[in-house]
Amino acid sequence: MAGITLEEAQLVITAAARQAQAIGQPMNIAIADEGGHLKAFLRMDDAWLGSINIAINKAFTARAFDLSTQKLAKLAKPGEPFYGIQQSNYGRVMIFPGGEPLLRNGRVVGAIGVSGGDNSQDQRVAEAGVEAFAQIPPQNVRAA
Amino acid sequence: MAGITLEEAQLVITAAARQAQAIGQPMNIAIADEGGHLKAFLRMDDAWLGSINIAINKAFTARAFDLSTQKLAKLAKPGEPFYGIQQSNYGRVMIFPGGEPLLRNGRVVGAIGVSGGDNSQDQRVAEAGVEAFAQIPPQNVRAA
Amino acid sequence: MAGITLEEAQLVITAAARQAQAIGQPMNIAIADEGGHLKAFLRMDDAWLGSINIAINKAFTARAFDLSTQKLAKLAKPGEPFYGIQQSNYGRVMIFPGGEPLLRNGRVVGAIGVSGGDNSQDQRVAEAGVEAFAQIPPQNVRAA
Amino acid sequence: MAGITLEEAQLVITAAARQAQAIGQPMNIAIADEGGHLKAFLRMDDAWLGSINIAINKAFTARAFDLSTQKLAKLAKPGEPFYGIQQSNYGRVMIFPGGEPLLRNGRVVGAIGVSGGDNSQDQRVAEAGVEAFAQIPPQNVRAA
Repeated sequence: MAGITLEEAQLVITAAARQAQAIGQPMNIAIADEGGHLKAFLRMDDAWLGSINIAINKAFTARAFDLSTQKLAKLAKPGEPFYGIQQSNYGRVMIFPGGEPLLRNGRVVGAIGVSGGDNSQDQRVAEAGVEAFAQIPPQNVRAA
Repeated sequence: MAGITLEEAQLVITAAARQAQAIGQPMNIAIADEGGHLKAFLRMDDAWLGSINIAINKAFTARAFDLSTQKLAKLAKPGEPFYGIQQSNYGRVMIFPGGEPLLRNGRVVGAIGVSGGDNSQDQRVAEAGVEAFAQIPPQNVRAA
Repeated sequence: MAGITLEEAQLVITAAARQAQAIGQPMNIAIADEGGHLKAFLRMDDAWLGSINIAINKAFTARAFDLSTQKLAKLAKPGEPFYGIQQSNYGRVMIFPGGEPLLRNGRVVGAIGVSGGDNSQDQRVAEAGVEAFAQIPPQNVRAA
Repeated sequence: MAGITLEEAQLVITAAARQAQAIGQPMNIAIADEGGHLKAFLRMDDAWLGSINIAINKAFTARAFDLSTQKLAKLAKPGEPFYGIQQSNYGRVMIFPGGEPLLRNGRVVGAIGVSGGDNSQDQRVAEAGVEAFAQIPPQNVRAA
């Protein structure tokens, strides 16, 4: 099964940015590949500088654990089973909403990470990216 | 719109240091530019060594998220929406009071970070810097 | 003077990617803003993973010293005046060709960093980005 | 014997900045204390961003080895006895001219680090700081 292509990453990031514009909140948006490595990134004008790192690492985190960072956030609270996970991976594990795995045929082939607004804004923008990826027709899949 | 100039940074840092002397608490005081990069710094005699890094990073944080670190501190507590943000940006995000953005015409053009006392002391010194910046007349603005 | 906008960054990165395709070498291409911070990034399919960091840091370096990394590479050789500069800035200083400042009216407002091929390939792709930036008409400049 | 005071650090940094203005090259100038820790810093308008770290670390280096970084630069070349020293101290050892210890009664009590121009410019600005420190009359010495 092929990993996410640059063409697909750009479709996803464009759809997410359109959602951010609709919300009216400038965002940092990152796409990671199946290795968790940065594939595409954009920072909208006036988006927070501190969110560059967070967006990239939300995408990393969503792929690293094949899990929405929104779900991980709940599991990483004090008293919950994954409390402390944010100390691992040299500080790259982000425990806020806004990171979502990108799946093809049930398999994680990449991830999107969004940072720049409040939790629900970040999450809505990430979900717009997930939806755009889900709508990519099979014929666009690169023969791997 | 011009970023903060060295002349302005020095006015701000001097005003903040005067407030620290009035309080009687030696402080580290840092000014960051619009990119979050150090523009000016001083450590008063007998101020904590461990606060060099904290002052510089409070200024970075206030610019990185265009937000008072006092407000960020509340948002980053366990159970709050930004819990975990302090893991990001390689440990540079400071979630104590004492970091404040510096605004010109509603736009963040730099930040001040103060560390060396308790939270309320740091905050008062940072606010003295913010007030000094607000009083700089427009004709001091560098033509950019 | 306005910094580089996302719209401009995307024009530059697209022109650079087109050059990389013409050369037939998959590349990592990064655009930094006037503070040296990542504004846009893409990794072409099959481009080296190890070049993500290098492309981002070439862009950082070109802005950090307002200098082509190709010129810096010569100055940083053993026996030359900047030998040792690559130790600074926590390893972010890249001393290979492929990083170029982006100037507007003689002022550096951003930078491009390219990594994925040999030195001359990286350099050609970076220069394609510089040329695209130079051709952006003034009316595209964001009122700051 | 007292370490360098903030008042002294500011005299030194001001004298160095005046020299930089005379040369016409914007500089980053840092003063370290007897522990090698940052005491004062300024970045002149339009000085290189990449030189913030270098200026601070030149001051650190000059205190860390109680040696001019100009002399260390010679000793650290390939084939020379200190070749490799720049790998130590987590990349903080700078092997260019522009870092000078500040002595009182033959004892190193601080250091100045300058970065922003070519080697000879950095060195001249650092030396202006050293000369200013040498001229501070004894009665200015803080009782320690």
